[in-house]
Amino acid sequence: KVMWTVLVTLLGYASSLPVGEDALCTTEELAKYRIIFTGKWSQTAFPKQYPLYRPPAQWSSLLGVTHSSDYSMWKKNEYASNGVRDFAEKGEAWALMKEIEEAGEKIQSVHGIFSAPAISSGTGQTSTELEVHPRHPLVSFVVRIVPSPDWFVGIDSLNLCEGDHWMDEVSVDLFPYDAGTDSGFTFSSPNFATIPQDTVTEITCSSPSHPANSFYYPKLKILPPIAQVTMVKLKKSQLGLSAPFINLPAKSNEIIDTVS
Amino acid sequence: KVMWTVLVTLLGYASSLPVGEDALCTTEELAKYRIIFTGKWSQTAFPKQYPLYRPPAQWSSLLGVTHSSDYSMWKKNEYASNGVRDFAEKGEAWALMKEIEEAGEKIQSVHGIFSAPAISSGTGQTSTELEVHPRHPLVSFVVRIVPSPDWFVGIDSLNLCEGDHWMDEVSVDLFPYDAGTDSGFTFSSPNFATIPQDTVTEITCSSPSHPANSFYYPKLKILPPIAQVTMVKLKKSQLGLSAPFINLPAKSNEIIDTVS
Repeated sequence: KVMWTVLVTLLGYASSLPVGEDALCTTEELAKYRIIFTGKWSQTAFPKQYPLYRPPAQWSSLLGVTHSSDYSMWKKNEYASNGVRDFAEKGEAWALMKEIEEAGEKIQSVHGIFSAPAISSGTGQTSTELEVHPRHPLVSFVVRIVPSPDWFVGIDSLNLCEGDHWMDEVSVDLFPYDAGTDSGFTFSSPNFATIPQDTVTEITCSSPSHPANSFYYPKLKILPPIAQVTMVKLKKSQLGLSAPFINLPAKSNEIIDTVS
Repeated sequence: KVMWTVLVTLLGYASSLPVGEDALCTTEELAKYRIIFTGKWSQTAFPKQYPLYRPPAQWSSLLGVTHSSDYSMWKKNEYASNGVRDFAEKGEAWALMKEIEEAGEKIQSVHGIFSAPAISSGTGQTSTELEVHPRHPLVSFVVRIVPSPDWFVGIDSLNLCEGDHWMDEVSVDLFPYDAGTDSGFTFSSPNFATIPQDTVTEITCSSPSHPANSFYYPKLKILPPIAQVTMVKLKKSQLGLSAPFINLPAKSNEIIDTVS
């Protein structure tokens, strides 16, 4: 059995993943995946201004969608929707869920919504299941970085279909994005709306190029990944009554330090 | 078409719901429901010590499970599991997800896990879908009250099956519970472990009987419901490709004040 693993480590997902959104998906089956999100936001890997109190570093709920190329939840260098803004700024999911629902109703571009519980520390895991369809093979999701002005990590339109089959496993390193709606520079900056709204941009160790920025590490070439996501296709025998799970790792809070 | 609505308003769900866990469920079909959780924790309804800052009043992710009577997520007057303790104290879901997974593997008492995104204010809504099975017709879930020592709202083993059919709609008012693991008296009390651990108890306007308690309202007979949950059975035509939703209400943040 061939194990398909796409591990994107250097440039971040959105700018480098080789699969096209419009690649033809010819499988006729639905597929279910377990998605496991791992926070790697440790004080060791990200010592600068690491939030320890009120609130300490943590991750919001994960909100995701399976869809066709006619829908986009968020996209680098484009403006965030109002729903993505509410979610990135406050972790408020309702407006984004409504946007997704409307896209599902009006242009049938959405197969389903999924969500996973929040993580109460910077390094931990959360998980849920998702279902993809040959006409809706793309996965997008967002997780808010807490605390932060409007920063998040996520995936934009990852195609789980490869021609006539579904990928067995995909892992992607995640890097921080700025939703372009709040001009705060640091994790704990007070709210300060960006007017006019800016586009979604990746935050790197050198951009925004200002020493006050929480991710500004002038001695690094690239940030270590702040999170990782893995999607594993569930076998038929793992589906259905009384066996909807694959084995989750035993621990969620081990410190996962990244050499940078 | 008969609309089955169970509206439990006076005594809280756990002590009054008339359906038995062991009632025979003879339908042969699976059923899907949309579950909508509505926070009613407004400053008007709960003026005492209402949390306005760092963090303001809000709700954690919702974590739920569909199961048989061989599994119990939590139960009034019994000790909370370690997973429920972690969730009620910190909103950390991993240990509870592991417990549910193990119950699913070992005694096949679990059909599936579901979760819905957190709500960033005291009055708002969140929603997801769940699936029940004739041998796993019970629904349980928890939502942490944020901030709080170890307080939560939830449902324990609500049976959605009524003999040979699934209920069309169920609404239940929710009242606060204390997980019995942290002795804090107020929303913002510092952590103070309860040793030995106490059982899960309902918090009322008179119990704990101490003026410092955040829910102590000696002039009231009963607290207004702090939240409400509604489960609506999805029609077949609402299932599957591109129509996994029912219409969600347009707004989530309207203030829902309760006459008390």
